Amino acid sequence: MRLRKFSWARQRIYFLKRNDDNCVLIFEKDSMQITQLNIPKGMIDFGIGQPAISLLPTDILRQAAEHRLKQGDPSILQYGTEPGNGYFRLVLSEFLSDGYRIPVSADQLFITSGATQGLNLICTYFTSPGDTIFVEEPSYFLALHLFKDRHLKVVGLPVDEDGLIIEVLEEKLNEHKPVFLYSIPTFHNPSTVTLSADRREKLVSLSEKYHFFIVADEVYQLLAYTVTPPPPMMAYDNTGTVLSLGSFSKILAPGLRLGWIQAAPFLFKRLTQSGLLLSGGGLNPFTSGIVQSVLELNLLENHLEHLKKIYRERSSNLSTALSEYLPPGVNFSEPQGGFFIWLRLPEKFDVESFRSRAREQNVDFQPGNNFSSKQRLRNYIRLSFSYYDVGELRKGVSRLASVLKTG
Amino acid sequence: MRLRKFSWARQRIYFLKRNDDNCVLIFEKDSMQITQLNIPKGMIDFGIGQPAISLLPTDILRQAAEHRLKQGDPSILQYGTEPGNGYFRLVLSEFLSDGYRIPVSADQLFITSGATQGLNLICTYFTSPGDTIFVEEPSYFLALHLFKDRHLKVVGLPVDEDGLIIEVLEEKLNEHKPVFLYSIPTFHNPSTVTLSADRREKLVSLSEKYHFFIVADEVYQLLAYTVTPPPPMMAYDNTGTVLSLGSFSKILAPGLRLGWIQAAPFLFKRLTQSGLLLSGGGLNPFTSGIVQSVLELNLLENHLEHLKKIYRERSSNLSTALSEYLPPGVNFSEPQGGFFIWLRLPEKFDVESFRSRAREQNVDFQPGNNFSSKQRLRNYIRLSFSYYDVGELRKGVSRLASVLKTG
Repeated sequence: MRLRKFSWARQRIYFLKRNDDNCVLIFEKDSMQITQLNIPKGMIDFGIGQPAISLLPTDILRQAAEHRLKQGDPSILQYGTEPGNGYFRLVLSEFLSDGYRIPVSADQLFITSGATQGLNLICTYFTSPGDTIFVEEPSYFLALHLFKDRHLKVVGLPVDEDGLIIEVLEEKLNEHKPVFLYSIPTFHNPSTVTLSADRREKLVSLSEKYHFFIVADEVYQLLAYTVTPPPPMMAYDNTGTVLSLGSFSKILAPGLRLGWIQAAPFLFKRLTQSGLLLSGGGLNPFTSGIVQSVLELNLLENHLEHLKKIYRERSSNLSTALSEYLPPGVNFSEPQGGFFIWLRLPEKFDVESFRSRAREQNVDFQPGNNFSSKQRLRNYIRLSFSYYDVGELRKGVSRLASVLKTG
Repeated sequence: MRLRKFSWARQRIYFLKRNDDNCVLIFEKDSMQITQLNIPKGMIDFGIGQPAISLLPTDILRQAAEHRLKQGDPSILQYGTEPGNGYFRLVLSEFLSDGYRIPVSADQLFITSGATQGLNLICTYFTSPGDTIFVEEPSYFLALHLFKDRHLKVVGLPVDEDGLIIEVLEEKLNEHKPVFLYSIPTFHNPSTVTLSADRREKLVSLSEKYHFFIVADEVYQLLAYTVTPPPPMMAYDNTGTVLSLGSFSKILAPGLRLGWIQAAPFLFKRLTQSGLLLSGGGLNPFTSGIVQSVLELNLLENHLEHLKKIYRERSSNLSTALSEYLPPGVNFSEPQGGFFIWLRLPEKFDVESFRSRAREQNVDFQPGNNFSSKQRLRNYIRLSFSYYDVGELRKGVSRLASVLKTG
């Protein structure tokens, strides 16, 4: 038979597999990837902000899928109601009420395919290209990427050890009219700081006075290791200015693509009455059904305790190793939760050239300037401790230290 | 304890459920909905373009989930590679090569959370607000809704019994510069017509000459009952002007939120290099893993044959009932595939006033004007035969006929 020639396919290397007499499959040799990760052999990459593969609970998902699917209820296979399955939202609201230590109601929850999709939906239905938004400086680098894709004008605001500096925010509000502030209030990515309770109240007051939304990325809220953080931003909401992004990615499994937006219910109309939701229905009904069983069978509490124990050990050991190995002039705060340590190096340090040398020594990380909306922060490094075990973390730090010393 | 007062929550009716001493849950009484459907008791609603709940294969999903999750492979729980799991794409490409009767390669497939999300992604990464796009007149009403949400300028083009009229398209291309044409080439929703092979070739030639994309919504391609339609639009693609939307919603289960875009691989860069994909990873890795097992266990072929048998019977019985009951002056073509029948009534007919009377008689449908980008088609009615069994379809037609007669 004739192999169809696609003109765009000419210069590629394929392997051909004969399916039957009528069909030939074409596939690029290196495309059989399953996960996002493609780490060079031998590299310790502190840049990976993902859970270790060994922390992904296949057994929990197997039990939950069996529990849900043996009930023979086809409703989770149908187009789901736009805000998400009501029973799942009720069970999730109970789980969050416990974890957040505030009352969370089911009708405050809109089910998403993860925090990033929640943020993307908010960009689509709350902003137009050219609108101004505020972010923290530093901020999550892929959120900055997403805002750039959406042609939003990004204004970065400084943080200190108590999070976003409210006085600077108020000054900037006299210059700009942002649609929203994108904030990571608890165990900030990458700076690890947590916004104080006092500043949370002031922030919400300002959002009411100046009419902007607070999009709070709170995916690390339930990963507290050594402190109890203030409750999430919705605890301070009075008039519906807060939209909180939550996710099962950090506390259960990223591959589920399951998360939520918590907000005043009237705000969800922009989403639930969109063509996207009316046509496709709720965003992840099948997986919601399975995770409903994870919650109903009380499988998440123990798993979350296990994760916190592991991450606490990793965080503490990474901190110890950094203190041991790294030369003076490198500063950081030991994290109280989340996935990261944020290293501050002397002002003259250039992270990009350092990174080239580090990679030659089989160690990598996220350079600080990736987290800057202003091309700054070239003397910062983000290290993640979520992916590697304690031994690997220590080995990575020793490599980093040796490159620093030869610099 | 104190029940937190949300000011936006004041005038609602709640039921309160005591969780433990620290927490009170608040929930609206009527929010426990699972699926999108909320049909008034006794109503036969021909407007529902969803599979019947009895056609949703819980047992297939149970078997597939067990097969996938007992393997204990955690990779489907991790952030997935941006275009989707390579092994799933390979298995899907084999399935589509058979079903489409053209070679489909895995690197032509980008995994989505359903056809609507695919369309939404294309709007985000290929258009800007204010851009012009072309649609067929009529077109899928919720796609029109989605385009309106995205502030696109929509130009409607006429169809006849062979689909889009290519001569009119070419005329309009001299007046407008569309980013894309949104087309439903096979078993069109709502008009049921299929674009002829000859017109498919001409359409692709025009897309190359005038530099626009063809976004082909081909979700009914595999639901052919009485004919073999021409192969999907990608069979005619030469230079990467076609983006084909596919989905498991109509052939397996909508609640999975799993679909694909088939296109020249270089077009996927706009998606895979976006902040959305880089941050969240592939769009549905967990469900992809389970549906990979559906395909590997050969569970879909038989199910699809079963669906086609059921839908063929429903389509044929609905057609017969319409011919029997409806007065002269109501015309339609018996569908050859898909979910719909498109009734044409006399020019003076006003579908909205008719609909009010029909609903009083417990029968409902989608009025033609919903499918018009020009507020026209008020003498058309779309009936779906996917949701109800033969007895209910006949009962519904008898009700429609009696309202028509009293009109």
